[in-house]
Amino acid sequence: MNNVKIAYIGGGSKGWAWKFMADLALEESFSGEVRLYDINFEAAKTNEIIGNRISMQKDAKSKWRYRAVKEIGEALEGADFIIISILPGTFDEMEVDVHLPEKYGIYQAVGDTPGPGGVIRSLRTIPIYMEFAEAIKKYAPSAWVINYTNPMALCVRTLYVTFPKVKAIGCCHEVFKIPKILSLMLKEKEGIDVDPSEIKQNVLGINHFTWVDKISYKNKDLFPIYGEFAEKYYEEGFEEEKDRWKRDYFASANRVKFDLYRRYKLIAAAGDRHLAEFFPANWYLENPEKVRKWKFSLTPVSFRKEQAKELYEMSQKLAKGEMEFPIKPSGEVGVQIMKALLGLSDFITNVNYPNVGQMDGVPRDVIVETNVCITRDNIRPIYAGKLPNDVNSWVLRHIMNQEMILEAVLNKDLELAFRAFYNDPIVESKLDFDTARELFKEMIEGTKRYLPKYFGGEKD
Amino acid sequence: MNNVKIAYIGGGSKGWAWKFMADLALEESFSGEVRLYDINFEAAKTNEIIGNRISMQKDAKSKWRYRAVKEIGEALEGADFIIISILPGTFDEMEVDVHLPEKYGIYQAVGDTPGPGGVIRSLRTIPIYMEFAEAIKKYAPSAWVINYTNPMALCVRTLYVTFPKVKAIGCCHEVFKIPKILSLMLKEKEGIDVDPSEIKQNVLGINHFTWVDKISYKNKDLFPIYGEFAEKYYEEGFEEEKDRWKRDYFASANRVKFDLYRRYKLIAAAGDRHLAEFFPANWYLENPEKVRKWKFSLTPVSFRKEQAKELYEMSQKLAKGEMEFPIKPSGEVGVQIMKALLGLSDFITNVNYPNVGQMDGVPRDVIVETNVCITRDNIRPIYAGKLPNDVNSWVLRHIMNQEMILEAVLNKDLELAFRAFYNDPIVESKLDFDTARELFKEMIEGTKRYLPKYFGGEKD
Amino acid sequence: MNNVKIAYIGGGSKGWAWKFMADLALEESFSGEVRLYDINFEAAKTNEIIGNRISMQKDAKSKWRYRAVKEIGEALEGADFIIISILPGTFDEMEVDVHLPEKYGIYQAVGDTPGPGGVIRSLRTIPIYMEFAEAIKKYAPSAWVINYTNPMALCVRTLYVTFPKVKAIGCCHEVFKIPKILSLMLKEKEGIDVDPSEIKQNVLGINHFTWVDKISYKNKDLFPIYGEFAEKYYEEGFEEEKDRWKRDYFASANRVKFDLYRRYKLIAAAGDRHLAEFFPANWYLENPEKVRKWKFSLTPVSFRKEQAKELYEMSQKLAKGEMEFPIKPSGEVGVQIMKALLGLSDFITNVNYPNVGQMDGVPRDVIVETNVCITRDNIRPIYAGKLPNDVNSWVLRHIMNQEMILEAVLNKDLELAFRAFYNDPIVESKLDFDTARELFKEMIEGTKRYLPKYFGGEKD
Amino acid sequence: MNNVKIAYIGGGSKGWAWKFMADLALEESFSGEVRLYDINFEAAKTNEIIGNRISMQKDAKSKWRYRAVKEIGEALEGADFIIISILPGTFDEMEVDVHLPEKYGIYQAVGDTPGPGGVIRSLRTIPIYMEFAEAIKKYAPSAWVINYTNPMALCVRTLYVTFPKVKAIGCCHEVFKIPKILSLMLKEKEGIDVDPSEIKQNVLGINHFTWVDKISYKNKDLFPIYGEFAEKYYEEGFEEEKDRWKRDYFASANRVKFDLYRRYKLIAAAGDRHLAEFFPANWYLENPEKVRKWKFSLTPVSFRKEQAKELYEMSQKLAKGEMEFPIKPSGEVGVQIMKALLGLSDFITNVNYPNVGQMDGVPRDVIVETNVCITRDNIRPIYAGKLPNDVNSWVLRHIMNQEMILEAVLNKDLELAFRAFYNDPIVESKLDFDTARELFKEMIEGTKRYLPKYFGGEKD
Repeated sequence: MNNVKIAYIGGGSKGWAWKFMADLALEESFSGEVRLYDINFEAAKTNEIIGNRISMQKDAKSKWRYRAVKEIGEALEGADFIIISILPGTFDEMEVDVHLPEKYGIYQAVGDTPGPGGVIRSLRTIPIYMEFAEAIKKYAPSAWVINYTNPMALCVRTLYVTFPKVKAIGCCHEVFKIPKILSLMLKEKEGIDVDPSEIKQNVLGINHFTWVDKISYKNKDLFPIYGEFAEKYYEEGFEEEKDRWKRDYFASANRVKFDLYRRYKLIAAAGDRHLAEFFPANWYLENPEKVRKWKFSLTPVSFRKEQAKELYEMSQKLAKGEMEFPIKPSGEVGVQIMKALLGLSDFITNVNYPNVGQMDGVPRDVIVETNVCITRDNIRPIYAGKLPNDVNSWVLRHIMNQEMILEAVLNKDLELAFRAFYNDPIVESKLDFDTARELFKEMIEGTKRYLPKYFGGEKD
Repeated sequence: MNNVKIAYIGGGSKGWAWKFMADLALEESFSGEVRLYDINFEAAKTNEIIGNRISMQKDAKSKWRYRAVKEIGEALEGADFIIISILPGTFDEMEVDVHLPEKYGIYQAVGDTPGPGGVIRSLRTIPIYMEFAEAIKKYAPSAWVINYTNPMALCVRTLYVTFPKVKAIGCCHEVFKIPKILSLMLKEKEGIDVDPSEIKQNVLGINHFTWVDKISYKNKDLFPIYGEFAEKYYEEGFEEEKDRWKRDYFASANRVKFDLYRRYKLIAAAGDRHLAEFFPANWYLENPEKVRKWKFSLTPVSFRKEQAKELYEMSQKLAKGEMEFPIKPSGEVGVQIMKALLGLSDFITNVNYPNVGQMDGVPRDVIVETNVCITRDNIRPIYAGKLPNDVNSWVLRHIMNQEMILEAVLNKDLELAFRAFYNDPIVESKLDFDTARELFKEMIEGTKRYLPKYFGGEKD
Repeated sequence: MNNVKIAYIGGGSKGWAWKFMADLALEESFSGEVRLYDINFEAAKTNEIIGNRISMQKDAKSKWRYRAVKEIGEALEGADFIIISILPGTFDEMEVDVHLPEKYGIYQAVGDTPGPGGVIRSLRTIPIYMEFAEAIKKYAPSAWVINYTNPMALCVRTLYVTFPKVKAIGCCHEVFKIPKILSLMLKEKEGIDVDPSEIKQNVLGINHFTWVDKISYKNKDLFPIYGEFAEKYYEEGFEEEKDRWKRDYFASANRVKFDLYRRYKLIAAAGDRHLAEFFPANWYLENPEKVRKWKFSLTPVSFRKEQAKELYEMSQKLAKGEMEFPIKPSGEVGVQIMKALLGLSDFITNVNYPNVGQMDGVPRDVIVETNVCITRDNIRPIYAGKLPNDVNSWVLRHIMNQEMILEAVLNKDLELAFRAFYNDPIVESKLDFDTARELFKEMIEGTKRYLPKYFGGEKD
Repeated sequence: MNNVKIAYIGGGSKGWAWKFMADLALEESFSGEVRLYDINFEAAKTNEIIGNRISMQKDAKSKWRYRAVKEIGEALEGADFIIISILPGTFDEMEVDVHLPEKYGIYQAVGDTPGPGGVIRSLRTIPIYMEFAEAIKKYAPSAWVINYTNPMALCVRTLYVTFPKVKAIGCCHEVFKIPKILSLMLKEKEGIDVDPSEIKQNVLGINHFTWVDKISYKNKDLFPIYGEFAEKYYEEGFEEEKDRWKRDYFASANRVKFDLYRRYKLIAAAGDRHLAEFFPANWYLENPEKVRKWKFSLTPVSFRKEQAKELYEMSQKLAKGEMEFPIKPSGEVGVQIMKALLGLSDFITNVNYPNVGQMDGVPRDVIVETNVCITRDNIRPIYAGKLPNDVNSWVLRHIMNQEMILEAVLNKDLELAFRAFYNDPIVESKLDFDTARELFKEMIEGTKRYLPKYFGGEKD
């Protein structure tokens, strides 16, 4: 198959797009064309050059044509696959999301899913995804859509609510951390080297708040081993590389995971930075000191801004051919999913997908993250069961909040958005109702450049 | 119909039983026999005398025979109706439920439904109800069971789980407070006198945490009036009798209700003392001062003990004929329900009943409180709809907890009971995981006389 | 309340409209205006005159203004209630529906719900109701819609599918026959006179194929009495007026009902003419002789045409004042429903409404017929339970067919319409697949004047 | 893993057991012990000898120990897997099931699932499976149970209803026929050789009445090819070996499948002999001539009896070592399933399993047949979607019937069993209610040796 057409929305992305290009280049069984669409056309144009350069590298096993396009319709028309990976707003808005709440004593590690930052980010992201859904309906109704943007669940949910026949999934690498950790544990405990992809797990929950209740390697149950390590390393933490969490804003020592195991006897399947944001502030995020005690970081947006600058410079070099992007696997499974959807292999992995019954105890249609079985033009969820009632009560609270946020946008109802904001565990546990309203207003004001007019923003 | 047979479990009750006797005496359309069963046979015997005296009073419109029995089977055999109204354990256990947590900074107004007290009370109540259900299955499988004991939802749920064909409901007068309040508002605002029973409301939720989302009197929508009063009297509160909450441990100024209206635009339909216990401690129950600010009371168990003494003395007088119990309506609707079940009238009221679909957004089979339509040998829930997502997230959390408590008893799993205990909003918001465990252990120890052996208690 | 606004779609109706006018005139508690809209404006105009004449009759307890309007929007704008009672197509199409299949050996008693006639009628009715729903959404989105047209379930379903927030119900008097029959049985057996409206029944099923599984009068269970009569009069039948079924095309001796009781131990709650059409042809409708044996009639459309002529003549006389329409209760409950929706009384009756959980064992959202509780601006289904599995398998088959017919129209898919046609028990039991297709084609051809172009018809 | 313990209920089986032994012998990755339990202990004993001989054959890749046991508990205790493959009753009862209805004009091809034979067989099978479930609960509650007995769905359903925590599936090879047929079609049309196991299909329905709505080989959609062949060979049929259906009582020319494709545009995924039994008699089974026209056979029980005799003789020879059973794959996947459950490979296949949500449009908990994903100690259904409404109405009717049959046994209610019998499409389409009752009585009488006493049988 050498005529596969991929539309890439957010195709001016730096770093992330290049890894995707490398993954494509490594896949022998299919090739074709990638149309890069971005509100920053310059960036898409640069990536066109970089992509075509990668395709020309001699270790590229398949040759793809990259083309920057100015209109979304041009990207989508006739596409087999649509990749969406955007930044909703800019890092300035993200700075408001993440850091403005600090003056109210609220600390966030990521701020893109729940928490005050997650809610505000959602308010500006959902309207964008409503437009994407309309464009997909118009130009490529039968294409498969793979979303990478956060808030993951709400992005995918918005696509389905706007265009119910969309064929969309959301992909996130957080869950893959668990097999990786287990392979380290197996190494330490039994001295064996196990490829994480051979570890089988049952995943259930919502994005960034997913749980593993069964995990095995061949005929060995890995659950007891995890339990043993969770206890043994409860205080110290358990990392591949000692104290990496101190040097890397995106790392952790898995202490939050171990604490959650102690409470719920389940494996929480996401990075600690994400997990911590789903619980009341006093659990893990009470203040920067407590965060350090739990051995993870509050990623500052200033760091992301610096990173962006470096990536921009790198993009210039790549485009000019002053450096070559290394073709090696990214760890993401997007290309494997496309391959399976083309019928060229079978693949089972966890994705974000509407609940058609794969997860009990949560409402139908909301976006849940479980394993699915992917075959030619088919994504079929695998029944994942039900969470224990206490864990489920937290998951349900976040699902209810997501539904309220979505409804707030659909009904253009800012008060409902505030109710979702206040029902967030971090906000509710830290602020009283009136103070929360002040914070909400400030955050709305601070991000208004990217908010729709019906929410007091500046966008049509 | 003059041969109706009523079994009264907890028939030695003081006060409550006499009101029920008075209600029976006031109902002309049916009569028969009441068998009083109580683990305190003396108390049942005293009530036999009191009941028969009431029947002989000349204002008694129907004549009932009262009979104390020593075995539960003797009470149940051939019964048409079974009333259950017991105290699980004694006030000593209730003292532990309510006041022991105070040394951990946890304050409770009632302590019989959620909160640490509610959880511990449930652990000793469910095993008793499992026995009741077995006895009902054996002796009176087609009788209608009307439960008045708290924790209401778990008592009724236990009956259904143990004997799925049981015909049981739970009755609670808390919801009736709303029509009463609205009639006061109508009086103040429009100068009209309205019988609260003519006010129609849609009720949904779980016992003591019920909500009204529609309310009207004839062709008038009462919702806007409630909203107006909630705003106007937000600070001052709104009572029939000024500052009664200061004098009466069971009264309140409805400030909690008004605050909940402000947040959720719904009418919370229970007394403020109950409502407050369903939310995190810092909302209303942070400390005794905050409780006073919200204008309600923390009913001390010492007061209940004193009351019990007075009632005991009164029972002696009533039995000796030294005083007469006044025959007037109690405000409870148990007798009206029986009348409707006999086919002698139709009746619509709110009851606690398994969710067969009357309430959306919560699991099937759990006990919810909504309106039902009662006709001959039939109780049929009326579709009540769905709560807003934020309110529902609180309701779901309590439902999940109730399910865990039940499961803990069914599986004899004390750790699961602790997980439910910790997932309670009051406990979780106030204590960390380890401290909560200490409190839990102390409460278990303090109530062990009435706990089953598999929970470390002293009962078989 | 003297300013209630009613839009009457199909307001040129003869007979049926006049009864409605009489019912309105008999109701003291509210009055207002009725806008008569009809594709036959002349007929609406005549009814305007007749309506205003009825209002002027001295026994009219309330005075209504009638006004014929030329545009549907004029009727709907600001309406509190919308009555829909139309004839989809003309009696010529109905002749095709009912009698064309006779040459294939298929006999139908009514032909407006299931059966070949029902399917074809649906294909021309659903597009009309899609237009009604759009108009309601535009002009009167919060009005209550009361539909009387058949196919009842599909008419109401179409309204909800097209405009999900519509507040619509379907009313049908067929179910009322059961209390009437039971009152006759009580009269015969116990010599007592009982007002049928005092008989309480639990109703469940789909329109014209509804069932009663509980029925009582005061404290008396009427089920055994029905069973006794069903057995005793199995051969002879049971009628208010001996052999009326021989003289009245709309009457029956209830033998079909008794036969269904014998099979299913349930009371089938519709006229025998309707019930017979839901089963395979050989059960009751094999041929005219068998129909006579079961003591009911195949109502010929020629008779309906004659009736229509007589009614037209009557309308002229009424309009000219040459005769007066008698003001007496019609037996329909539309006016009582409006009164209850205005908050002026409570009312429990059976209506056709989307399944929100009131009926177990059938899909959500399809239109089921059960009791509902009506209060101010509220219609709330009462939980009706589940049919026995064998009865349910027939009900489900018809529900599946209705869903297919609807889908066929929504997708403009004539083949799907044929599949529904062939899955109808009468068609399937009588014709093989290929012959059924011929019949289908003939019927489509014969009704094409009122079919949409995408089905080969002549309407846009 | 060389200590796997398998309990084989019905371990005296001839033919089927030997194939299973050969499959075990071919699997290198695990071995252990097989305990053979049978009500005919002699037969089990003979199979012990045969099994051990097969193990000793030099082409046996794994060595299993076979042991006949006298008590079911001895077989089950400590078992990892339980195979159930029994004949409920004897071929004499099966003769009544299949042939007695012929005198009423009812013809059956198999008579073990629906149809009069299927119903009667179920009545004697369910009580046996209730006993199996109790024994499994007692002796091996965590073993995986693989059932092969028909009526498949009711056998598995009975296990779950009696012991809800059972880990049971039902395996049936009928569905594998579809990939086989498609590989033949691919061979004929495109000249390519495709291993059927590489063809991926989505399966949904109930056992012997399953459907395929998606099928592909690599990136090729096979649905259009099937459609083309179904049309081309509609009259002639399509077989691997021309006119085999004339010589082989178990073969067919797939004409029923092609006819069902013509109606429903789906692939019916079972042998024609089974499929035909789910529809009204006049579709395919009207009489032996019509059956021949559709090119399949009515397998006579006399043939099965003869086969049994031959197998008995073969068993003697095998036991004496006068012949050797050939070790080659049986085509069944039981051993692959066990291997996957042990964690030694992953496996996706279709099995019969309770509906936990994998199939929409049918009730929860009933046994459906869809693909599942099997990993270590885990069977997880894969979401299969929903059948078209017309097909679903047939499936639902059979599900309703199965539920009635089960309920009839649980409630010991023979009248309910008859209602299920009459609601069967073959019975209902062929006989009137009273004649059906006669047939039912005769069949009950004719099989009473193996019916429980509460159904008028001779078993306790």
